[in-house]
Amino acid sequence: MNGQHAPQSFDRVLSSMCTEPHPAARTAAERFLATNPGDPATYGTIAELESRAVELLCTVVDHPRSGPDLGYLTSGGTEANLQAVRAARNLAAGGDVNVVAPESAHFSFRKAAAILDVELRTVPLDRDHRADIEAASAAVDENTALVVGVAGSTEYGRVDPIPDLCAIAHETGARMHVDAAWGGFVLPFHDVPWTFADAPIDTMTIDPHKLGRAVVPAGGLVVRDPATLDALAIETPYLETHAQATVTGTRSGAGVAGAVAAMEELWPDGYRETAQRCQRNAEWLAAAFADRGYTVVDPSLPIVAASIPTPIFEELRSAGWKIARTDRGELRIVCMPHVTRDTLRAFLSDLDRIAESDGSRTAGSR
Amino acid sequence: MNGQHAPQSFDRVLSSMCTEPHPAARTAAERFLATNPGDPATYGTIAELESRAVELLCTVVDHPRSGPDLGYLTSGGTEANLQAVRAARNLAAGGDVNVVAPESAHFSFRKAAAILDVELRTVPLDRDHRADIEAASAAVDENTALVVGVAGSTEYGRVDPIPDLCAIAHETGARMHVDAAWGGFVLPFHDVPWTFADAPIDTMTIDPHKLGRAVVPAGGLVVRDPATLDALAIETPYLETHAQATVTGTRSGAGVAGAVAAMEELWPDGYRETAQRCQRNAEWLAAAFADRGYTVVDPSLPIVAASIPTPIFEELRSAGWKIARTDRGELRIVCMPHVTRDTLRAFLSDLDRIAESDGSRTAGSR
Repeated sequence: MNGQHAPQSFDRVLSSMCTEPHPAARTAAERFLATNPGDPATYGTIAELESRAVELLCTVVDHPRSGPDLGYLTSGGTEANLQAVRAARNLAAGGDVNVVAPESAHFSFRKAAAILDVELRTVPLDRDHRADIEAASAAVDENTALVVGVAGSTEYGRVDPIPDLCAIAHETGARMHVDAAWGGFVLPFHDVPWTFADAPIDTMTIDPHKLGRAVVPAGGLVVRDPATLDALAIETPYLETHAQATVTGTRSGAGVAGAVAAMEELWPDGYRETAQRCQRNAEWLAAAFADRGYTVVDPSLPIVAASIPTPIFEELRSAGWKIARTDRGELRIVCMPHVTRDTLRAFLSDLDRIAESDGSRTAGSR
Repeated sequence: MNGQHAPQSFDRVLSSMCTEPHPAARTAAERFLATNPGDPATYGTIAELESRAVELLCTVVDHPRSGPDLGYLTSGGTEANLQAVRAARNLAAGGDVNVVAPESAHFSFRKAAAILDVELRTVPLDRDHRADIEAASAAVDENTALVVGVAGSTEYGRVDPIPDLCAIAHETGARMHVDAAWGGFVLPFHDVPWTFADAPIDTMTIDPHKLGRAVVPAGGLVVRDPATLDALAIETPYLETHAQATVTGTRSGAGVAGAVAAMEELWPDGYRETAQRCQRNAEWLAAAFADRGYTVVDPSLPIVAASIPTPIFEELRSAGWKIARTDRGELRIVCMPHVTRDTLRAFLSDLDRIAESDGSRTAGSR
């Protein structure tokens, strides 16, 4: 290493679903760097902290009860989504199992389907990029083990009609999973149904290491019924514990300690302040794009998508901006906590300079 | 957190396959805590470091060539083992696939088989706790997609006859995987075949976060042929990269940076010194157990198993020692780098005190 590699600066990162950890999370993570919550008989303190993390998550997702047996901290949202699919598969009566998810579902569901060898049926979206209820209703059948709803989609930050999807799932005998991996720490401050109190959902993904301002790796899986975790358990010799429901064996104590520290520090007031600030930035940016004649997808959560032409996108990237695109090719800016108004002003200034020199500044020219 | 939780001390930890990270690994991990190698377009520096980590792993496992396309840093040994099984399943012609592994294989293979829905056939061990070659040969058939050999077993630190198992695998058209998750960083200093140069193995698990003295999470998957990773790839929108072969999406930059720092600092001289010191401690402890009349399994790698009666085991645990047992109930001590001779002396002193007061000190009384 020899110091030649400078760690990442977040100054120009507009593409990431992760962010700079809260200082309390960083400090806690550094203290517990050499612990393993996957071996609770050896590393008891961090195992207790994981119980605390799960109880805190139960509060955030408005779980009807709270307890350390209602989930665990995963390596990230992918593991949590995979485990929800796995539990549904394992609990299904058998045969060819399918999972019904909106087109907006994260690609981790395709990964989970490939790993677990189940069929993934994607259903189209409505005009506001949310799961189309009629299409979902038509897609389920007696082999459907799970219906997925997204609460804060990766591309446009949309929340699917969770209670309706849940009703469709349960009517057909399937389970209901909500993927709030990214949205879970801002949604408590929005007026939209998404929690265990809003609908009888079975499992949820909510990641402290995204908008929860914890340290990677800290994903979260929360279950309504502890029996869900039993359906995932594998017997464990050597460890002086009986079974392990996690995908990974050795796990990061840093991630667990950081998640507890962030949630204890920020829930609820700090998260509310963060959510409001991120939302104001997103709405300000959306208005600025619209003023320039670009077509903008309304940011109901702090993600802004705008129809910036590809040559301008590429030049912005060459100028050092870390930016990404939607599947349809729109520029997509995630207004994470590290993204300040000044950063957005600097970005727009570069955009204007490039658009002008390209002679493509007005919407009419595109 | 409020400082009420003290992080783990390793003083009395004799049960863990992990250890205190090397100081250089800790420093590097702390610097890269807020990065994500799962998103290389955004976090370029840590992605470059991961390439360096894979090249260093290629050196440790004596790979015929070196390159960033020959593996990746996993969340741990479980993910690496799961991916080896998954690649074998995906590359198999189809139908009901089975995996043949020795009884000594880590429980992560049972987890992988359950997740991936493949049959796991375990074969018995020979009298020295290594895979029985005749039994392995009898277990494979035309549906066998993978044969597993362990290089440093969890219970007794045994290395299976890797070249023989590899021949059995390839004769039947199966792939060959070596699980060196724990043993991989001491085996280069032992005279036993286990590497890509010793046999035409297809995949290997080797975890920097165990005897590599890196920071959790830093497992490792190394492949002979980059096409193995292609068999695991899932398309990725949003990320400005095309495909992702990993199980997890967001991943720990701390784990990657720590692994590079540890390997650059310690390969080969530091690891050789560590391996020799751990081995001397294990042999010294084995002799001390034998002197006291206990039956000891010879530590060919730094794990010592001894027939300590259960009441004494429980009292040692009550005295604060973090200890574990083999499946047969033997006390099992992993002489990791943090386990000093003084620690072992203090442990034996407690053992003697407890055994004497139990009146069960002599072997004859058991």
